[in-house]
Amino acid sequence: METYPQVIRRIVEHLRKFPGIGTKSAERIVAYLLRSDSHEISAIANDLLALKERIKPCRRCGNTADGELCAICANCNREHFLAVVENVEDVAALEKAGFRGYYHVLGGTIDHLDGAGPERLSIASLLSRIEEEEFSEIIIATNATSEGETTAHYLTKILQEYGCVFSRLGVGLPVGGELEYIDAETLKKSIEHRRKC
Amino acid sequence: METYPQVIRRIVEHLRKFPGIGTKSAERIVAYLLRSDSHEISAIANDLLALKERIKPCRRCGNTADGELCAICANCNREHFLAVVENVEDVAALEKAGFRGYYHVLGGTIDHLDGAGPERLSIASLLSRIEEEEFSEIIIATNATSEGETTAHYLTKILQEYGCVFSRLGVGLPVGGELEYIDAETLKKSIEHRRKC
Repeated sequence: METYPQVIRRIVEHLRKFPGIGTKSAERIVAYLLRSDSHEISAIANDLLALKERIKPCRRCGNTADGELCAICANCNREHFLAVVENVEDVAALEKAGFRGYYHVLGGTIDHLDGAGPERLSIASLLSRIEEEEFSEIIIATNATSEGETTAHYLTKILQEYGCVFSRLGVGLPVGGELEYIDAETLKKSIEHRRKC
Repeated sequence: METYPQVIRRIVEHLRKFPGIGTKSAERIVAYLLRSDSHEISAIANDLLALKERIKPCRRCGNTADGELCAICANCNREHFLAVVENVEDVAALEKAGFRGYYHVLGGTIDHLDGAGPERLSIASLLSRIEEEEFSEIIIATNATSEGETTAHYLTKILQEYGCVFSRLGVGLPVGGELEYIDAETLKKSIEHRRKC
């Protein structure tokens, strides 16, 4: 590293902070950038600058938006389901899975270990949306992690008081999963949540 | 993807061109960037712009440099070995492996399948360096791929005519390698290039 020019060292440091990028990948990316032409690099730099300027959370759901509302909230032809998710990445994942309802991005989870309570999540705006908009069902789509579970439990209690129809994502075997390779916790869940047939 | 704002889609497209980055990693990086503060993003954008402006190939060896010479060529206290490598990434790899001589970056390989001949490599400048500078040994450090081998063979013939001392990187078992897990070609090479003991 000390033989690299300073600007390269700085870019390697930036890239190493990106999720999933180690020193080796960062160095390979810098080599790619050095081989790219200047227009390509300027385009990347300008788009990065535009990112923080133009992208704000959607006023309604918290998803990424380049206007007041995100493309999903601005579309009034979607199904009247509401998926409550932890982060914007989860919106992309559910879109790919074919979900065509609306979303509400909590902005994290309740994490007792971390001292993170429900007050930092967008639960107040979730409740006003439930009162104002007409959803046929609220799907609590938090991760199947302990923080996701804690958050889902908390929401379950509140939504019960609101008397609305709600559900949670199924848990169990992944598609194509073979029992001998599945971890014991997942297998336990798949027994617990077995489906009638 | 179609539900993302346009600038996000463009950044995902840029990132997907980076080596080792797929759509999912690109989306996770964008989510990270959205959570980062504006200063961090501006710093990345500015460093990217500086990259193409400031970094040029070292006039002597072809390594990355922010002046006329790279940090290695500018240092006259290194050992008098010359490692001939394919790309700048290989300089970083050999530095990490503790090599403390000088380098010559060929800028690629001879690839007959690809129609890439030796004329696009910096062989002429390698030969003038060998004549002008005093190296105790030239180490041909191309990759152990078929293109690397072809290039090494070509260089071997030329260097023989020049009557200089030269060698190639050892091939065989990786450190910690177990015979039952090593591919047959490598094992074959490790027998062929067995060391006297």
